[in-house]
Amino acid sequence: MPQSYRIDCLQYANWSEKLFSQMREGGLDAVHVTIAYHEDFRATAANVADWNLRFQRHSDLIFKGRTGDDVRRARETGRTAIFLGLQTPAPIEADIGLIEVLHEMGVRFMQLTYNNQSLLATGCYEAEDSGITRMGRQTIAEMNRIGLVVDMSHSADRSTLEAIEISQRPIAITHANLSSWHPARRNKSDEVLRALAQSGGMLGFSLYPHHLKDGSNCTLDSFCEMAARAADLMGPELIGIGSDLCQDQPDSVVEWMRVGRWTREMDYGEGSASAAGFPPQPKWFQDSRDFAGIEAGLRRAGFSDTEAAGVMGDNWLRFFDENFGPAT
Amino acid sequence: MPQSYRIDCLQYANWSEKLFSQMREGGLDAVHVTIAYHEDFRATAANVADWNLRFQRHSDLIFKGRTGDDVRRARETGRTAIFLGLQTPAPIEADIGLIEVLHEMGVRFMQLTYNNQSLLATGCYEAEDSGITRMGRQTIAEMNRIGLVVDMSHSADRSTLEAIEISQRPIAITHANLSSWHPARRNKSDEVLRALAQSGGMLGFSLYPHHLKDGSNCTLDSFCEMAARAADLMGPELIGIGSDLCQDQPDSVVEWMRVGRWTREMDYGEGSASAAGFPPQPKWFQDSRDFAGIEAGLRRAGFSDTEAAGVMGDNWLRFFDENFGPAT
Repeated sequence: MPQSYRIDCLQYANWSEKLFSQMREGGLDAVHVTIAYHEDFRATAANVADWNLRFQRHSDLIFKGRTGDDVRRARETGRTAIFLGLQTPAPIEADIGLIEVLHEMGVRFMQLTYNNQSLLATGCYEAEDSGITRMGRQTIAEMNRIGLVVDMSHSADRSTLEAIEISQRPIAITHANLSSWHPARRNKSDEVLRALAQSGGMLGFSLYPHHLKDGSNCTLDSFCEMAARAADLMGPELIGIGSDLCQDQPDSVVEWMRVGRWTREMDYGEGSASAAGFPPQPKWFQDSRDFAGIEAGLRRAGFSDTEAAGVMGDNWLRFFDENFGPAT
Repeated sequence: MPQSYRIDCLQYANWSEKLFSQMREGGLDAVHVTIAYHEDFRATAANVADWNLRFQRHSDLIFKGRTGDDVRRARETGRTAIFLGLQTPAPIEADIGLIEVLHEMGVRFMQLTYNNQSLLATGCYEAEDSGITRMGRQTIAEMNRIGLVVDMSHSADRSTLEAIEISQRPIAITHANLSSWHPARRNKSDEVLRALAQSGGMLGFSLYPHHLKDGSNCTLDSFCEMAARAADLMGPELIGIGSDLCQDQPDSVVEWMRVGRWTREMDYGEGSASAAGFPPQPKWFQDSRDFAGIEAGLRRAGFSDTEAAGVMGDNWLRFFDENFGPAT
């Protein structure tokens, strides 16, 4: 029986030794963590430095992942490989040369937009989506060259379809679900997911309640039925988990995610004035220790052992192997 | 007879005492100078500091202008008031709070885009124009509140029309001509200019050869006939000069303007591979000493003394008086 790996392809927690220990208890060989939502290059470098300090202090639990082989090394040494990613292109500012610099620092995913229009593409909260810009085309080519994965999780549909078409390498939607299951603005249409799959791109399922049918009350079975529908649509090799877990964060963090410094008015994003904070997680997915339950749920929903192992991590590992290095 | 003023509402020269002396010889009471094309906030602050040093060293010739009254003070003291402006919103980065900070530093104009898509609007070189973004709407409101003028000289048509509509105060196109006279990508359609005039906005005529009919061989009479056509279209009170004079600059500067750091490929903008550098100025407009000739040309083209004085500076002065302070 082949070795199977467990990977969460999106978390943004209030990091602590407790959480790294929970990653180990949950058997996570790798976690892709967000290090920027609105930060510029300098602030992102500080966030990398903070992670480097965590790697030094908690070297028994975590280390910086750079390649797929680091996931295997994590399994061999009983630790979790942490892969850095950006939910915004703000860290490259207007300088295409910073793509390679950030890759050297360990960054492996970059969203072309967060919720708003960026220099590169359009976010899913804009009224109009004009697709990939002039700098966006240059940026995708450079990300392809270097091995920095294009992530369109927060982007609008036309921009996402164009990114899939323009990119010479597969792209990812690290954390979103099917809008046919739950029509949230952040979830993705069958059209987008079909194009993603045709290009070899990956979808990571989100466990953030605003992306779930029935929100915090979503059942594990409903979530796994959605996963089965995605497997029918995209194939079982192109799906994984990107939980969007924001553990132990105060509500001020979700306000900052939404508002940044781009507006002087309040913007509630996926929330509302009466429910502005982080929504409670479903009972069956509270933290990194709950991955085993998801794997069991996938089997109940009809996934074979191999297919379920793929969703839990093997699919992401194959994607990491193929997409984190220079173009060949 | 009323005092009449002379204002050039756009220059970006390789600044020196020689050029400040030429401003005096040309009778310029005020010049709006560009201090950023691609610069972020920190680099823009350095450019402000460089100007502050010039104001100290050449206090007999120039000083920092902040209000319309500073133009009158320039006339009274035989100097030129220098107003700072941005041809890019890059200096506010993603922080709306920097609008007020930049205004405190003396900045009075900000383009919502240079040639490419920005966080706020679409530049005239993009294939698609999605109009004013979410942050763009917030930014215009804040610029209106503070008294920082929205300049759409390099923006695409839909974005420009939306900026005119959204802005509660008149906007400016500081340096462009009529596309009905010379159909350059940077020149403006009658539709845009009519909407600009209806909202009380100003157009400054450019003397950059790529914006002129017959380029470097454009005649003064042709230029002044275009001005007369603009007066018919917009009214003689809403037009002025924004020469776009880039005096004494090496060709590396125009390459930087076009390419910045957003692409790894060459982009020739309004030029071409065979004519990549700054084009030569028309014989009749070499530098700031040539403004008297334009005034004479305007009179020959049928402008009355008062109308010609308006175009040469009085119109901009009225606009400065009304738009450089907080909203009332």
